[in-house]
Amino acid sequence: MNAALYFFNPRSIAIIGATADPKKFGNAVTKNILENKVLQCEIYLITQNSEDIQGKKCYRFLSEVPGEVDLVIILVPARIVEIVINQCIKKKVKGIIIITAGFGEIDDIGKRVEQEIVRKCKENGIRVMGPNCVGIQNLEMGLNASFIQTAPGGSIGMISQSGSIGCACFYEMQEWNLGCSKFASIGNNVDFSYFELLEYLKEDEHTRLISIYMESIKNPKEFLKVLRLLTPVKPVISLKGGKNAIGMQTASSHTGSLASDNRILKAALHQVGTIPCDTIGEFITAMKTFSYLPLPKGEKIGILTNSGGTAVLFCDHLERFNLQLASFSAEFIDKITPHVIPLVKKVNPLDMIAGAGEKEYFEITRAMLEDPTIDIIVVGLVIPPFLEMDPGEHFKGAVKAWNQTGREKPLLILNLFGEHFSGIKQISKEEKITFFTNPLDVALSIKFLIERMKFLNHLNEIEP
Amino acid sequence: MNAALYFFNPRSIAIIGATADPKKFGNAVTKNILENKVLQCEIYLITQNSEDIQGKKCYRFLSEVPGEVDLVIILVPARIVEIVINQCIKKKVKGIIIITAGFGEIDDIGKRVEQEIVRKCKENGIRVMGPNCVGIQNLEMGLNASFIQTAPGGSIGMISQSGSIGCACFYEMQEWNLGCSKFASIGNNVDFSYFELLEYLKEDEHTRLISIYMESIKNPKEFLKVLRLLTPVKPVISLKGGKNAIGMQTASSHTGSLASDNRILKAALHQVGTIPCDTIGEFITAMKTFSYLPLPKGEKIGILTNSGGTAVLFCDHLERFNLQLASFSAEFIDKITPHVIPLVKKVNPLDMIAGAGEKEYFEITRAMLEDPTIDIIVVGLVIPPFLEMDPGEHFKGAVKAWNQTGREKPLLILNLFGEHFSGIKQISKEEKITFFTNPLDVALSIKFLIERMKFLNHLNEIEP
Repeated sequence: MNAALYFFNPRSIAIIGATADPKKFGNAVTKNILENKVLQCEIYLITQNSEDIQGKKCYRFLSEVPGEVDLVIILVPARIVEIVINQCIKKKVKGIIIITAGFGEIDDIGKRVEQEIVRKCKENGIRVMGPNCVGIQNLEMGLNASFIQTAPGGSIGMISQSGSIGCACFYEMQEWNLGCSKFASIGNNVDFSYFELLEYLKEDEHTRLISIYMESIKNPKEFLKVLRLLTPVKPVISLKGGKNAIGMQTASSHTGSLASDNRILKAALHQVGTIPCDTIGEFITAMKTFSYLPLPKGEKIGILTNSGGTAVLFCDHLERFNLQLASFSAEFIDKITPHVIPLVKKVNPLDMIAGAGEKEYFEITRAMLEDPTIDIIVVGLVIPPFLEMDPGEHFKGAVKAWNQTGREKPLLILNLFGEHFSGIKQISKEEKITFFTNPLDVALSIKFLIERMKFLNHLNEIEP
Repeated sequence: MNAALYFFNPRSIAIIGATADPKKFGNAVTKNILENKVLQCEIYLITQNSEDIQGKKCYRFLSEVPGEVDLVIILVPARIVEIVINQCIKKKVKGIIIITAGFGEIDDIGKRVEQEIVRKCKENGIRVMGPNCVGIQNLEMGLNASFIQTAPGGSIGMISQSGSIGCACFYEMQEWNLGCSKFASIGNNVDFSYFELLEYLKEDEHTRLISIYMESIKNPKEFLKVLRLLTPVKPVISLKGGKNAIGMQTASSHTGSLASDNRILKAALHQVGTIPCDTIGEFITAMKTFSYLPLPKGEKIGILTNSGGTAVLFCDHLERFNLQLASFSAEFIDKITPHVIPLVKKVNPLDMIAGAGEKEYFEITRAMLEDPTIDIIVVGLVIPPFLEMDPGEHFKGAVKAWNQTGREKPLLILNLFGEHFSGIKQISKEEKITFFTNPLDVALSIKFLIERMKFLNHLNEIEP
């Protein structure tokens, strides 16, 4: 059985270091677990300082807990962790999350202590996550066994070696209608780690794509082997922190990670079909891409816009990513002619000029979606502050066309710096869609889509 | 006299093609001009369809206008523009903005027509801006002679060949406390253009930095000569649209621009001291940089953070931009030791761990600002969702230290994905500061600062 089940789907949890003091991390975890009323799970709070917390009875020691315990979350100071581990072994728990920091990320003594903990736990069939992590979350179960906010719900299985990167990504994901099915922060990554997590997420029906922020990989060969089996099934997005000498030195202080050559790693990750990102901005762009967009059938891009400059800036990135524009067919031009003013040049990118509104966006987007020579549609847009236009009308027109055609082709909305209009966020929430605000992100997103299309096509060729 | 005065500081303006119909561009310009009550300027509305607009008397022809006219704004259809131009010549106006599209960006006939207009106007001492542009703005004067929204006020003199890029940038600038002193959209760029605009902005006391979005440069040699004189005085940021074959073809449909080799242009722009940007994201980052940050005296960076991952990701960009971290001195370590918990490793980047709050941010930021071996300070930050922390407290702590030390060193706040907290926007507005949300942007911003420092140092060496 995959040990991840004890972490993501525990039948019972004990929090050692639970506290009512809102200024302590033990309180943050306790609150996060108790607050979710959906959670079906026995909860035991262990502390010597309170009789009860939020009306929930506390136990002084783990040994006093009446039932079995699947998962223990440890929040006591580092110097007491080893004592607590012994209690866990006695209690025959299945999994332990050590949130406490102050181990391998600090010095060699810390490294030895965490290794000793792992050794002891392994002997007793117990798996260890952390130390120096923020915990885990299972959104479907209503479980937030971490001290950070509950992730927005969605289809991303996220593994983050850094808790704060996870936390920051949640802020950003919230804004872009992205969300997690599962979240695991693995911290110093001493035992329970990528392999089991990835195998679990591969089978998890709520997870449609996987994103990984990593600073260290203990066994790259094994890691790549697991990924190779996973990428044909689900897109896997990765971001490596600690890419060069200074970055890696910093990562070593952060999660006790050791160096590995990033260029080789990136090439290897790419080869096994993952989507390695160079920056956290790209990481978010990749999550947007695979959360909402279907894969294209070909590589030809059609662009419509009300802003010539937006199309110019987008096209400036085509070469870098080896992207191709479609040439409009005579049939296509006939089809769109009634919907654009005579001033409009009927070439790709199609600049419909500033006066184009919902109707034009709907008609031209639909024409592109229906055109067999166009595989990918970019809807460029600067929200017009004139002619009494509704800021959301262009967006609505394009999405309506996308919905009518069954969302079969990737439709990328490039709403240049238009994210600050509250109505726009509302539409994208209601329509379950995301959008981009920067030409570079759109070009990169298309690159991701095409690479994944080619990767899967290639697999089908070699294993038909 | 620089012709820009007639455009930016006209004593009288005639709008030809003014209209009360809110669905027409002529109305957008009319409204924008009439709405600003600060504007001290004679306004004449010319139309054959209304007696008055918003209570303002209309004239049927320019010839009926009683006084002199400095600036004419033309919004009539393209086929009538030449007739109107003749009326302008008769009236002996000084400058004309042709907002109307449908000239050189359409075809060769359009190119010939716009050339003929320029020739005729030149003969009569009249300067022409546009055609196919959105107009101009002078924020100090309360003049918005364009059909887009009034830019947020500030210290950037902005020239944009594309009106919609200007419009989109205004949306983004608003969010980041950036603003314009002057704005000019030059469209097809047939006559009145960069040279006079740049010379005007160079002398303009309200303009502290200059940003240019360009698709075509008619006379690159002259352009570079003007820039060479300008960059020692004010930072000049540029973004070139139409960088490669496809992008340039698109730019040609957009503003009728012709190709030029972008790599050579970029190198030349760099050589004369401008800050050429590769993407519109970089363009905004450069505007943030020079709107708020002082130049450093040296290159050594000090980083503090509550999120190790944020520091790791920032450091991953050091190599690419050739940036250097400071080494903490023994004195510095003594100074900060009382302010951090024992778990904290006293190395740069200084990861104060998740519990650090306003006090720690204030103390450590101040220590870095006061340390003679640290030239540039990066305040890394993931807003903690735990321990009842105030989302703005870290920000406040850092800014307080910056204010106390007279804002003499550049302080870059890297608030990873924290822009969605309304309180944060409020603080940055009140404190007249901006921040960054992405490690890459911070690294790039520091690169911009160091390059400008070196450029000015070099000038001082050769011309002491």
